[in-house]
Amino acid sequence: MKVSLSAGTLAPAPMYIVGTYDEDGRANMMAAAWAGICCSKPPCLTVSLREATYSYHNIQARKAFTVNIPGEEQAAAADYFGLVTGKKTDKLADTGLTAVKSQLVDAPYIEEFPLVLECSLFRTVELGLHTMFVGEIRDVKAEESAVGEKDALDLGRVKPFFFFPGDRMYYRIGEKLGPAFSIGEKYRT
Amino acid sequence: MKVSLSAGTLAPAPMYIVGTYDEDGRANMMAAAWAGICCSKPPCLTVSLREATYSYHNIQARKAFTVNIPGEEQAAAADYFGLVTGKKTDKLADTGLTAVKSQLVDAPYIEEFPLVLECSLFRTVELGLHTMFVGEIRDVKAEESAVGEKDALDLGRVKPFFFFPGDRMYYRIGEKLGPAFSIGEKYRT
Repeated sequence: MKVSLSAGTLAPAPMYIVGTYDEDGRANMMAAAWAGICCSKPPCLTVSLREATYSYHNIQARKAFTVNIPGEEQAAAADYFGLVTGKKTDKLADTGLTAVKSQLVDAPYIEEFPLVLECSLFRTVELGLHTMFVGEIRDVKAEESAVGEKDALDLGRVKPFFFFPGDRMYYRIGEKLGPAFSIGEKYRT
Repeated sequence: MKVSLSAGTLAPAPMYIVGTYDEDGRANMMAAAWAGICCSKPPCLTVSLREATYSYHNIQARKAFTVNIPGEEQAAAADYFGLVTGKKTDKLADTGLTAVKSQLVDAPYIEEFPLVLECSLFRTVELGLHTMFVGEIRDVKAEESAVGEKDALDLGRVKPFFFFPGDRMYYRIGEKLGPAFSIGEKYRT
């Protein structure tokens, strides 16, 4: 039996930290959960921001941004990036994290975060309260310690976490459930 | 120290099961991980599909779809929805799951899945290999047993899981890590 919870954005969401430069070349980071992968070729992702944010204008001006995936141990810093605005404070200085200039796009990434996707602006889609920026992923960089054999990223070492809008809580990633494109084979007729 | 893993869609992704009707009114389901929330007002989400899929043409024709979030116990069925095409088989019959007609949009949802978002097509964005469909969320329905006090959805009862493209594995959701818009307060200057 289903009950209606009314229209809303009630689905588990990723925790993307969006890195940009402002007009003075100062690095800024903000948290975005309205986000996801959206194309394989070219490889693209979306991040949706409100026009009121500092990062919105940075992306418009620089046509580039990074997406930084925090691990569990960086959860408080990542949360802070969503609490305050870069107009009024230097969030990197406040958290003691290090901005590194991307060699591929005009945006900074966080040295201490385990996974970084460097993006050039590919499309801008006005939707309403949020504007959706589609970024083409130009490179993925990972912390060396999170990379296992054969250059494969070990998610157990990245330890990403998720945001659930329903209770406004972060949730850890858990154990492996099973291999994709495989556990459903039993239903094949 | 960061190492480059080259450009690619290497980020943790949600598991959305997209429900549509074909031209004969037959319900179809497919798995989509290139997806996410993209706007708060109107509440919207994205699902990206290749033109080669059956669901792509269903959405184009019906201008509606549902997003069904499976729990752990439905992982094999959800995986199956991504393994085969609705052109050749009835995936709901194969898995023994029940399609219910949405009263709000021209699309079916899965009765047994814990969380359902009913969407009308809001925008279509051509990106490359994938086309991104933006759906306006018209209602969210949850299984009664997953709803706790004050009509709040309990994620511990939904038990969603995630897809990681790096190792093509599904991962369970884990424990609560902490409250959003709160654990970062310690950095406020």
